[in-house]
Formats: sequence, structure tokens, C-alpha cells
Amino acid sequence: MAHEPHLTEETITREELLRGRFLHVVRDTVRLPDGATSHREFVLHPGAVVVVALLDDGQVVVERQYRHPVGQVFIEFPAGKIDPGEDRLACARRELLEETGYTAREWAHAGVMHPCIGYSDEFIDIWFARGLTRGARQLDAEEFLEVITATPQQLMDWVREGALTDGKTMSCMLWLDNVLSGRWVLDWKAQSST
Amino acid sequence: MAHEPHLTEETITREELLRGRFLHVVRDTVRLPDGATSHREFVLHPGAVVVVALLDDGQVVVERQYRHPVGQVFIEFPAGKIDPGEDRLACARRELLEETGYTAREWAHAGVMHPCIGYSDEFIDIWFARGLTRGARQLDAEEFLEVITATPQQLMDWVREGALTDGKTMSCMLWLDNVLSGRWVLDWKAQSST
Repeated sequence: MAHEPHLTEETITREELLRGRFLHVVRDTVRLPDGATSHREFVLHPGAVVVVALLDDGQVVVERQYRHPVGQVFIEFPAGKIDPGEDRLACARRELLEETGYTAREWAHAGVMHPCIGYSDEFIDIWFARGLTRGARQLDAEEFLEVITATPQQLMDWVREGALTDGKTMSCMLWLDNVLSGRWVLDWKAQSST
Repeated sequence: MAHEPHLTEETITREELLRGRFLHVVRDTVRLPDGATSHREFVLHPGAVVVVALLDDGQVVVERQYRHPVGQVFIEFPAGKIDPGEDRLACARRELLEETGYTAREWAHAGVMHPCIGYSDEFIDIWFARGLTRGARQLDAEEFLEVITATPQQLMDWVREGALTDGKTMSCMLWLDNVLSGRWVLDWKAQSST
């Protein structure tokens, strides 16, 4: 991306607003393109991964999980935060195993999406997995979620009907649709099982 | 959605963590499905709209805007927060006009997406507009953004290349692709110009 001074803001100072048990929020004082100053408040996030896991029968692995902020159960692809220093593929393999019990013989990196650019620096790295084997889940103590399988067409119907509204999952479905149609080609790599 | 006690959390108490100039953050103490208690910290948000504006030549209206939290220029569909008490369609018309200068003869509600279900209650209402007329923008004092037009295929190429990573825009592209293909049909309604 070229330097674009007519759009770009420069950070002057940063102030910590909140160091919660989970959320870390800062307020930056910024210089706007016209030289004026303003403030930007946002969440600092370590980044996350999401996994589109393709079963041999053409279905994909999805979760049903209650999300307290919105107060409803969401249909989502498996996802989770990156641990400090953790490799992104290692995180994808860990989250898929912990939340669903699946391991995969092959993995491909698709791209990245930014869920909330107005008030978070979070990125979500998008991974595809295939050659799946199901084992036992290893849920965290405070995780409660159902693992189900669905066809890509079923996911599309759920979006149309308003039953699937999670942004990271919809973003992954754009990738999934283009990959399954053959328009976009992924670079699959075999992974050892350990 | 049926009552699902094996997934659902119940709020016990709410505590205000941050009342910033922009961000409002709370911490809820919740009862988990197994009876244990835990805490959920998240942003309270008024909700937003995003607009997929279809030009007569087959292109769509997009913006290039610097997003300070991520520190880069993003390609996005026009979007903005709902004012207190504001009708969602009125908000969509206002944001399209203010940010891009376009007015539309016809509008259709597509659906809703949730950008950040882990730590925000934000919803984004997805609207389509057509029969566009360009006028003057009415940007807020602190808004700096470019308005461009692009074909849906160009947007898809940008996603594949990693140049378009905004979650709300990718979610809208899932709608756009299904609408343009004729698989999903929108309920268009004429709007007066005032």
C-alpha cells in the first residue's frame, strides 16, 4: 500500500483505558490528515484463527455456541485466539482439536479477515483443513458448544434465512464458495499428526 | 430458537468497566450451563448499517478509508452507526448520502450480520440500493475517505489477493454474489427522494 497522507492518521500518544480480565482498551490521540487532532478508542487483541474443516462426504464442521454479548446461539466455524508466541497454523490445529476433536492430514492458508476495524485491531487468519479424523474434544472448563456438520448449501440457506449471521463465518463462506467452485485454488500442505 | 439450557448463560450482575468518549464496556457475571459462574466483558454498541449500492453500469460503490485500530487503509462498503431512535433504512440512506453523495430510488433489506460476537453486541443491518444519483458528499468533520466504484469481480479478486479483508464487506459480498446470480431475491421498495 502506497503512503497516503490524505487518508492516514498518525499516533501522537496512547493512553490505557481498561485492562480487564479479558479486554484491553486504549485511547490514541491521533493527527488527522488535515492536521487536526482527534481520539480513537479501541480494543487491543492478540489475533485469532478460524478453520473451515472439509469432511470427505462434502460437509463442513460447524459449532453452535451461545455468545453472551449478543445473547443468542450462533452457528460458527471453529475459531479461537492465538496464544502468545503461537504459530498460526499450530493455533488452527489446536483450536480444531480442542473444540471439535478433529485432526486433519492437510492444511491450507486462505487469507485473513478483520472483524471489527472501527474499534479493534483484531485479525482472524483463515485456514482450510481436509483429510479429517474425529477424536475426543478437549474443551476448556468454561466452554459449552455443540459440534455439528452441514453442507455448504445448508450454510448458504441459513444465511439467506437469517439463521447464520456471524461475520467471520460469512467471510469464510465467501472463501469456501470460491474454493469449492474451483475459482480459487488453495496451496494444501500435508501435516504430521503430532 | 428453542430454549437451550445446555448452551445458554444467564446474567447475574452487570458492572460498568469503561464509559469512554466512544466505547462503552461492561462486565457481566454469568451463570454457565453447568451452574458455575464466569465473567464476560464486552462492548455495548448501538448497531450499524452497511449499504451495497448498485450502479446502473454493474459496478458497486466502495470506500477507501484509513482505520486507525488496524493502521491501514481498508476497502469497505459504506457503513455507519445508527443514531438513537433512528430508523434503520433512514440510517442507511443517511450514511450513503453523507459518505458518498449518492441517493437511491430503490432500497431492499437483505439481512443482518454480527461482526464481533466474542466481545461486542454490535449488529450490522445489510441494505441494498439501486437507481443511484450522485450528488455532493456531506462528510463529518473528522471523516477522511475516498469513494470509488468497482465491479463485483474486482472485489472478489481483491479478497483472493488479500487486499480486501473487512469482515462486514466480505459478508455483504456473500449476499451480493447470491443476489447477482439470481439465487437470492431481494424485496425492492421504491423510496421518495426526501
